[in-house]
Amino acid sequence: MSAPQEAPWKGIARRKQATRNTALHEPSSISIDVPPNLLPQDPPSCNSGPQPVHHIPDQLLSAQDRHITSISIADLLAAIRSGTYTSTAVTSAYIRRASVAQQLTNCLTEPLFTRALARAAILDRDFQNGSGKLVGPLHGLTVSIKDGFNVAGYDSSIGLASLCFKPASSNAPLVDLLESLGCVIIAKTNIPQTLASLDSVNNVFGRTYNPFNRLLTAGGSSGGEGVLVAMKGSAIGFGTDIGGSIRVPAMCNGIYGYKPSVGRIPYGGQQLTGLQGLSRSSVQSVAGPIARSMEDIECVLREVVPNAWMFGEDCVSWGNEWMAVPLARDPGTARQRFKGSGPSGEFVIGVLRSDGNCQLLPPIAKMMDEVSNAVRTAGTKMNVKVVDLPTPKAWTKAQSVMSKLMGVDGGAEMSRMLLETQEPLVPWMSTRFKHGGKAQKLERVAEIQAQRTQLEKDILRDVWKVSTDEFGRKSRGVDAVICPLAPHPVPEIERYNAVGYTSSWVLFDYPAGSVPIRQVKESDLELGKPLNTSLNVLGSWDEKSRELWDENKTDRKVYLGSMLSVQCVTGRLEDEKLAYVMGLIDEAVKNAAGSREAKL
Amino acid sequence: MSAPQEAPWKGIARRKQATRNTALHEPSSISIDVPPNLLPQDPPSCNSGPQPVHHIPDQLLSAQDRHITSISIADLLAAIRSGTYTSTAVTSAYIRRASVAQQLTNCLTEPLFTRALARAAILDRDFQNGSGKLVGPLHGLTVSIKDGFNVAGYDSSIGLASLCFKPASSNAPLVDLLESLGCVIIAKTNIPQTLASLDSVNNVFGRTYNPFNRLLTAGGSSGGEGVLVAMKGSAIGFGTDIGGSIRVPAMCNGIYGYKPSVGRIPYGGQQLTGLQGLSRSSVQSVAGPIARSMEDIECVLREVVPNAWMFGEDCVSWGNEWMAVPLARDPGTARQRFKGSGPSGEFVIGVLRSDGNCQLLPPIAKMMDEVSNAVRTAGTKMNVKVVDLPTPKAWTKAQSVMSKLMGVDGGAEMSRMLLETQEPLVPWMSTRFKHGGKAQKLERVAEIQAQRTQLEKDILRDVWKVSTDEFGRKSRGVDAVICPLAPHPVPEIERYNAVGYTSSWVLFDYPAGSVPIRQVKESDLELGKPLNTSLNVLGSWDEKSRELWDENKTDRKVYLGSMLSVQCVTGRLEDEKLAYVMGLIDEAVKNAAGSREAKL
Repeated sequence: MSAPQEAPWKGIARRKQATRNTALHEPSSISIDVPPNLLPQDPPSCNSGPQPVHHIPDQLLSAQDRHITSISIADLLAAIRSGTYTSTAVTSAYIRRASVAQQLTNCLTEPLFTRALARAAILDRDFQNGSGKLVGPLHGLTVSIKDGFNVAGYDSSIGLASLCFKPASSNAPLVDLLESLGCVIIAKTNIPQTLASLDSVNNVFGRTYNPFNRLLTAGGSSGGEGVLVAMKGSAIGFGTDIGGSIRVPAMCNGIYGYKPSVGRIPYGGQQLTGLQGLSRSSVQSVAGPIARSMEDIECVLREVVPNAWMFGEDCVSWGNEWMAVPLARDPGTARQRFKGSGPSGEFVIGVLRSDGNCQLLPPIAKMMDEVSNAVRTAGTKMNVKVVDLPTPKAWTKAQSVMSKLMGVDGGAEMSRMLLETQEPLVPWMSTRFKHGGKAQKLERVAEIQAQRTQLEKDILRDVWKVSTDEFGRKSRGVDAVICPLAPHPVPEIERYNAVGYTSSWVLFDYPAGSVPIRQVKESDLELGKPLNTSLNVLGSWDEKSRELWDENKTDRKVYLGSMLSVQCVTGRLEDEKLAYVMGLIDEAVKNAAGSREAKL
Repeated sequence: MSAPQEAPWKGIARRKQATRNTALHEPSSISIDVPPNLLPQDPPSCNSGPQPVHHIPDQLLSAQDRHITSISIADLLAAIRSGTYTSTAVTSAYIRRASVAQQLTNCLTEPLFTRALARAAILDRDFQNGSGKLVGPLHGLTVSIKDGFNVAGYDSSIGLASLCFKPASSNAPLVDLLESLGCVIIAKTNIPQTLASLDSVNNVFGRTYNPFNRLLTAGGSSGGEGVLVAMKGSAIGFGTDIGGSIRVPAMCNGIYGYKPSVGRIPYGGQQLTGLQGLSRSSVQSVAGPIARSMEDIECVLREVVPNAWMFGEDCVSWGNEWMAVPLARDPGTARQRFKGSGPSGEFVIGVLRSDGNCQLLPPIAKMMDEVSNAVRTAGTKMNVKVVDLPTPKAWTKAQSVMSKLMGVDGGAEMSRMLLETQEPLVPWMSTRFKHGGKAQKLERVAEIQAQRTQLEKDILRDVWKVSTDEFGRKSRGVDAVICPLAPHPVPEIERYNAVGYTSSWVLFDYPAGSVPIRQVKESDLELGKPLNTSLNVLGSWDEKSRELWDENKTDRKVYLGSMLSVQCVTGRLEDEKLAYVMGLIDEAVKNAAGSREAKL
């Protein structure tokens, strides 16, 4: 009797992890091993507590490395330009930090360290030979990218065994674009199985952990990206977003995520989870940055966006330049650029709360009040007006239409890839993914797209408050919107609930981003105590969401110290305006916090 | 034995024509009947000759009506603003002229005369009451629209019996938008059966004739629009374009046609030929203007585009204003706006000739040389450089991919509508439309869309001449393109050939427009005599196209006096740049003609 045969995916995953481990320590000269006593317990348990690791890299790195990895992108670029740091020094510092981050959180899939150092050496050579000539405006900037982006010679396995050891033959357009600007790509980062969940775990690479609290989710699908950037293991990262996959990990890791409209940043050259060309019939995912400040995002997009169309066939060539965004720093210029729709030319920010599918849990409701108040207070100086908006029906309905569109292929391609190596579903997917699904008929797809069109019509009226006067002339009432990213705080692993708060804006192709507001504090845990059980439950999503604040189902203490974030949204192709609004909210909230602290 | 029953469509068509005839003479106070001796022979024959009718309206109209209907839109609006003409006077003049045009060319489907006069009366009342207050910046401008656009209370039958006497319940967003700006919609115009041919003929309304030469096609699918505007029966018209349906009728009638990118002008609220929502899986048709000058187009788009997104859910809300286009009149400002890619900042215009599917017939080749030379000559002053481009393979292949995408629904919906009233196919469609077609599978649609993506990549390199330097940086080599609209001159009825010259740019969502250059003259007829039969025939399309200049198949004399036009193309969402280039070509050609005349 022979032993039962091992499923093929297992051996592949072992080999892949071994390969990754080797790459993590190459070149060995700059490798750092995290001492075992600093490594968190894996898997975590309630007994092990949150086990934060975000502070550990600073204990292991030199003062110079700490400085390099903590300054803003603008300062970093200036330091390279002035000769203070070579690109090699910068790349080495970030590689050391990324390697430490990997050991602490499991955020990487493909360390590209050797490739990155070779690239940095070329940048340094060109810079020195050319007596200070830069390859591009982002000369020496270290960047990480989500695993799906192709880098020639490396896998884009997206955590599937069947795609391992099948290196890409060419770079994704975004990779070429970043490198043409002078960037150094240092690593690819982890994602969830199927890319369709918000917990970054898969059979090949395992789970990526939240560096601030190992019990909470790191988010997804650009989860590794969110973690690596929050750990300062890369200066800025690029993820992709269709349901919230940039904004949610940014929220989970307390940083900034920016999802543009289709056409501003190249998306192509990705390992897809479905058929090539299918997204044109369903809905288009987009690529965008995750970073530690709005200034960092602005600094990079200013260079990326104007060049995007020459690299990505999916981008628009209109405009020779990204409209320089003055953020909130210069309200005068901003006012001129982004004309307000208010009666006296105020820039009108609409506040949306519940999406009508899930009610806001108490700390989210409170945070929304705080943000509104902060913006209201800052408003006078900035010529900004805040208005409360009732829940638009179209927003409520969008979640379901979006989910139908995302599933039009029936998961057939994904199913095939999983079955090829007998790979099992990860826990979260096991109740949500069905093998044997089939593509919808074209007529049915058209029907769903027609529903989408109807919602697009309604949302003009209900979100942007487009109104009609007696002559039939229309005007806009709202210039930008803020709303939650989720009805709940950053949840525990495997407990992320409804994605309608984020996915809906992709259905409308509205740019949307996440801005961190503040941490959950002790007093927040007292909110809604006892939880008001007489409130109407809106449906099964709502029921699940409420469990996250129900003391019989959740120990609220787990949320302590986790970040609460807000979402900003603008109209189609109003990408610069989104950057402006995110900066404005960020500054208003920081000012409010500052004045609170000053009063204490 | 009972008499064979008449097919249902026949009675419907008779009733519909009677209704149209009634509407044409309402209100009777302003109705003009064209004297029978001025009416052309119908159907035309070789013996009857070209029977031009374009000059007839001037014989029947008053001096004031002639003036109103011949001045530019800017002058017309100024005249209304200053009180020189009331909106009622302007509308009446245009109605009279449109009615005459209808009798001479059969270009209308729905005369909206009564509705238009009621609207003009309101405009006048508001203007007078408000002591000179305008309803909008286009106060009093008379506009016509293609039959497919819904106007509440009127049919959008698109020439199908099964859609007659089923009035729309609401206006298309474009109609609301135009009216909110102060426009007066005076009529809806004729189209081809199925909208998928370039000859505007259908069983309900019959054929629309070319006013300059009744033997030549009036073009399609916005054929009635092209004819009405050329006859000065409306100040400007809006058609739609997916294969060339704005640009081709503009060419056939010697005027200007402008097809924007998706998202700049509302397309919704149309009677579709297929399933609602299907275009999101295939390819999107767009709405755009047909006019008698670039100044007229510019004058209207400046007001339409910035407001478009509030009316049409399919438009982008980026940008508070249409970037005012200085056309070629002010090369200094234009240079600043539309930075050139030439080595010394020249604005580079690439010249494409054959699309690789059909060779250019001699008069088209000659006209392309003339335009290139004219722009070259004007170039120094305007800082413009002209470069010849080899035929991009992606352009050659685009025609077939486009045609596959346009047919993904198998014509099932159209077939159903035709069979419902036992309506036969018109001659051109009879060899091209098959009943019993079925929608493609979603997987197959994805496959075709993936082919489209590949072509989009190639075209960046081969049309915009995006090149890469040693550092991987890319730059653009070509800012705009000019190319033919067809390989042949305006052909005889039912002989329009390949649409690849126009349809391909819709596949790439590039804005494109047609600019009239000059008439075919006696000396042109000597070109290619005898026709070089040793030239390789590129395929069946090419073979058919060559017949149009082959003296054994065509009497070349038929082309005498017909207009030759050129097509201008820019990158995705570079709509303002398109208007600039069209103006530039227009001016360069007029200057060249002027200097030729001066030398004679």
